[in-house]
Amino acid sequence: MSTPDEEILAGHLQELRRGTVVLACLATLQEPGYGYALLETLGRAGLSVEANTLYPLLRRLERQGLLDAEWNTEESRPRKFYRTSAQGGVVLDALLRDWESLHSAVRRLG
Amino acid sequence: MSTPDEEILAGHLQELRRGTVVLACLATLQEPGYGYALLETLGRAGLSVEANTLYPLLRRLERQGLLDAEWNTEESRPRKFYRTSAQGGVVLDALLRDWESLHSAVRRLG
Repeated sequence: MSTPDEEILAGHLQELRRGTVVLACLATLQEPGYGYALLETLGRAGLSVEANTLYPLLRRLERQGLLDAEWNTEESRPRKFYRTSAQGGVVLDALLRDWESLHSAVRRLG
Repeated sequence: MSTPDEEILAGHLQELRRGTVVLACLATLQEPGYGYALLETLGRAGLSVEANTLYPLLRRLERQGLLDAEWNTEESRPRKFYRTSAQGGVVLDALLRDWESLHSAVRRLG
C-alpha cells in the first residue's frame, strides 16, 4: 500500500533534477568543453543525463546566449565546443543564489 | 551586453524551483493543513508560490495518492485539508535523498 507508483516517483525526481542540469552545465562550462566530455563530467558528479537530453539543452542555452559555441576543425571530424558566456555567468550566479536559498528553505521545512 | 534577458533568467529560475515545490509540500503537509496556510508557510520559508500554481499541484499530488485530502465541514464554508500520505512520505524521503546528492554534485562542479 505504501509503495509509490514507480512512474510517479520517477516523474517527480526528473522534475527535481531538470533545473539542476542547467546549473551544472553553466558551472562546468566555465572551462570550455565538448558535449561528450560534459556528459562524462556530469555523470561522475552524480548527475547522470542522457545524451538526447543534454545536446538539445546545450543548443537551447547557446540560442539563449548563455553559452558560446565554436567549432574545432583541427581534427578529421569537426566538433563543437562550448563555453559559458558572460551572460551565462550572470545567470549561473543568480541560479546558484536561488539554489542555496531553496536548499535552506527545504531544510527548514523538512 | 552581459545582462541576460529577464525572461530567460526567469524561465531557468522557475525550472529550478518547480521540483522543489513538490518536496516542500510533502514535507510541510506531514502536519495536516489547508492550501491557504501552506501558501503562507512556503512564502515565509522563502519559497513563494502562486495560488494558481499551488492548488492544481495539490490536486495532482492527491490524485497520485501522495496526499490524503479531507473536507472540514465544521465551518460555514467547507474547506479541504491535506496531509502527506504513507506513499507521499516514501516519495518525500526519495526526493530528499536525491536533493541532497544533487546539492553535493552542484557544489563539486561550481
